[in-house]
Amino acid sequence: MVYLTRRYRFSAAHRLHNEALDAEANARIYGKCNNPYGHGHNYVLEVTVVGEVDSATGMVCDLAVLDGAVQREVIDRFDETHLNLDVESFRTRVPTAENICLEIFGLLRVPLEGAGPGRDTRLERVRLEETSSNFFEYYGERDTRNTAPKVR
Amino acid sequence: MVYLTRRYRFSAAHRLHNEALDAEANARIYGKCNNPYGHGHNYVLEVTVVGEVDSATGMVCDLAVLDGAVQREVIDRFDETHLNLDVESFRTRVPTAENICLEIFGLLRVPLEGAGPGRDTRLERVRLEETSSNFFEYYGERDTRNTAPKVR
Amino acid sequence: MVYLTRRYRFSAAHRLHNEALDAEANARIYGKCNNPYGHGHNYVLEVTVVGEVDSATGMVCDLAVLDGAVQREVIDRFDETHLNLDVESFRTRVPTAENICLEIFGLLRVPLEGAGPGRDTRLERVRLEETSSNFFEYYGERDTRNTAPKVR
Amino acid sequence: MVYLTRRYRFSAAHRLHNEALDAEANARIYGKCNNPYGHGHNYVLEVTVVGEVDSATGMVCDLAVLDGAVQREVIDRFDETHLNLDVESFRTRVPTAENICLEIFGLLRVPLEGAGPGRDTRLERVRLEETSSNFFEYYGERDTRNTAPKVR
Amino acid sequence: MVYLTRRYRFSAAHRLHNEALDAEANARIYGKCNNPYGHGHNYVLEVTVVGEVDSATGMVCDLAVLDGAVQREVIDRFDETHLNLDVESFRTRVPTAENICLEIFGLLRVPLEGAGPGRDTRLERVRLEETSSNFFEYYGERDTRNTAPKVR
Amino acid sequence: MVYLTRRYRFSAAHRLHNEALDAEANARIYGKCNNPYGHGHNYVLEVTVVGEVDSATGMVCDLAVLDGAVQREVIDRFDETHLNLDVESFRTRVPTAENICLEIFGLLRVPLEGAGPGRDTRLERVRLEETSSNFFEYYGERDTRNTAPKVR
Repeated sequence: MVYLTRRYRFSAAHRLHNEALDAEANARIYGKCNNPYGHGHNYVLEVTVVGEVDSATGMVCDLAVLDGAVQREVIDRFDETHLNLDVESFRTRVPTAENICLEIFGLLRVPLEGAGPGRDTRLERVRLEETSSNFFEYYGERDTRNTAPKVR
Repeated sequence: MVYLTRRYRFSAAHRLHNEALDAEANARIYGKCNNPYGHGHNYVLEVTVVGEVDSATGMVCDLAVLDGAVQREVIDRFDETHLNLDVESFRTRVPTAENICLEIFGLLRVPLEGAGPGRDTRLERVRLEETSSNFFEYYGERDTRNTAPKVR
Repeated sequence: MVYLTRRYRFSAAHRLHNEALDAEANARIYGKCNNPYGHGHNYVLEVTVVGEVDSATGMVCDLAVLDGAVQREVIDRFDETHLNLDVESFRTRVPTAENICLEIFGLLRVPLEGAGPGRDTRLERVRLEETSSNFFEYYGERDTRNTAPKVR
Repeated sequence: MVYLTRRYRFSAAHRLHNEALDAEANARIYGKCNNPYGHGHNYVLEVTVVGEVDSATGMVCDLAVLDGAVQREVIDRFDETHLNLDVESFRTRVPTAENICLEIFGLLRVPLEGAGPGRDTRLERVRLEETSSNFFEYYGERDTRNTAPKVR
Repeated sequence: MVYLTRRYRFSAAHRLHNEALDAEANARIYGKCNNPYGHGHNYVLEVTVVGEVDSATGMVCDLAVLDGAVQREVIDRFDETHLNLDVESFRTRVPTAENICLEIFGLLRVPLEGAGPGRDTRLERVRLEETSSNFFEYYGERDTRNTAPKVR
Repeated sequence: MVYLTRRYRFSAAHRLHNEALDAEANARIYGKCNNPYGHGHNYVLEVTVVGEVDSATGMVCDLAVLDGAVQREVIDRFDETHLNLDVESFRTRVPTAENICLEIFGLLRVPLEGAGPGRDTRLERVRLEETSSNFFEYYGERDTRNTAPKVR
């Protein structure tokens, strides 16, 4: 199994605000990120797929399928937008980097199943860098990294 | 003369839109950057000062003065905002990276005059990176780089 | 489970030297890193926490808790110091990047337990970049990555 | 167990072309990467070893062994070459980044067994960055990351 | 005058070899870069234009003109090629980074004259990064940076 | 004239402290950088030479001369040292980044005169990055960038 990661970029505005909470709670939880008109980021998205290396092509993934899926599902929807106001799924869900990760994983999982020359290629990970100081990763529901019995 | 450059970061939303132009012209000039709710960037700001190296301290600039001026004049005003809606000077001026550069140079020029242990320290350059693919530089009005007679 | 990684920086001097070994052994093992007065690095520290995304806030970790713990336990102790001479724990332990990783993991593990809005957030990984050519990672004692039966 | 990753660089030309396929298939699969004379990259190679931290030295790996193995097995063979024409193993195997990863893992696995002061140090991962937009990782045959039962 | 720099990338193979010199001289001057089949790089190209900020658009350059010129004159010709064998101008001129810089400046100078909303926009600089350790810059023939009388 | 810049790295400890000033002044000017045992950095040094492109080789500089001069004059002296204690010139001069720049320029100016295949190659600039947030540049005494009459 070889892991292939491709890097994409999109620029978007967002505001961290939960309608279900009052103004004081929003200000306490989100600080300046709760400013009414929002702010923005250059998001760096890394999409990792994993699969067997196909013996004929020497590749794990058809890049046209991968790039096409990311363009159609993510870039066309999120790039140059205000996430809260332009993207349906964030009208009712706070567009934190965590939630954007979950959303992108959900958008890409099915389109990337079997995206390689071999049949077993699938989405492994979504990594989203929001600023130069933080990034977020989601491996899907079958992530077993943290299910090992605690031995401490 | 030694040049000292410090790097700062701020995150902001903006929309490229000129009220004086009609919708069709705005769309043609600015493309998706004209989307009504705006989008955003992680701006990387580099501020360059130049001066003689002070013989006592070995420095060209008092960093507390430099960092204080940038924090007060730029970061406190621009970070975590929507430039068009939150910053006075961009209510009537399109917040292109070029205009943000000019604005920041104007905000920092006076506070940084004589900002070193020596008296001659002054602002040399403002550089603003908007995305990983483009950046903008302004050297002030006395920039003589391009006044050489054309010999081509 | 979403993984959040934050990046921090500190600058420190260190000397690779084991008092229990003779001069020849120290020179052979550590080379120029054994120079008597030490040298230094800009360390880049990445701290990864993992947890469920809280449904109310959309976040896995209270950033004030995370940043506060790293500032208090790591930055305040290590930044702008000579690790061998200024930091208690490295008086008797060689401050290799490996040992600095173990030390930082130990300092942060308890303060970051339950550091999220949800109760399950905990420290996953400490990653320390010493130069642009090498970095070190520690996942704690319950790391099961390498306990799989060898099939080769 | 601490993971140590070292970064190396080599520059090489390659052409994506499978002799067993006809011209039309090669063009369809590899696009411009199938151009007859090849093109090239600055490859960034990361080699990760894992082991217990030796209590005497505070290190997981003898860097002279690691650097020596990478220089001899990889850099001396691949750097400043045309992979298809200069490197034996790519005369019959398409030098995709996936295949280069597998090849490098195979070249380094045995030389890095027991490469630390402790006996348990071994090669964990090879990561190859081909361009600023993609990278590839291989963890060897005992990689158990993807053998967890699918729960979706 | 504001300077706008855009970053582009292309991947190419090249061989440093001067037909007019004998084998021994080529080997001495170019070392391993003289290997017969060539090697390759991910070139990072920065193109800087300078002009007055247009008062209507707030921009110094029409990005469609700039991107179009670079795509047509540089990327379409150089990307995914072996420079010596695929690019006419390097059949008789050694494709060192210096010569590639001169060539690109020559290809872009005329197409970028008056490329802004204002009439005065023009090409200022071409910067080419060949590896992470070196880059090259050319400012055209009217560069006056080094014509100041030597006062040392 | 083409400008060639090469990047080098060295790791060193330093302490900002002027013996001629009292403890209170040192603390006020240098803050934590005045800590008694020093701290350290990964310095990134860029050396720029400028010259005509030689028509035979296509190069502006003999890289063996350039790399040899930097290795001998800078890396061998500064790397893996405590600048205040190991380097003669900083025993009486505070090793601020500004002073390190001046020192390196002085060490390299003569060895790099005529360092190209053509006779006119010479040192143009020394740039020193001390942390990811600041860098320093020195162009020598003949720098005319700032002697233009002030028109503001």
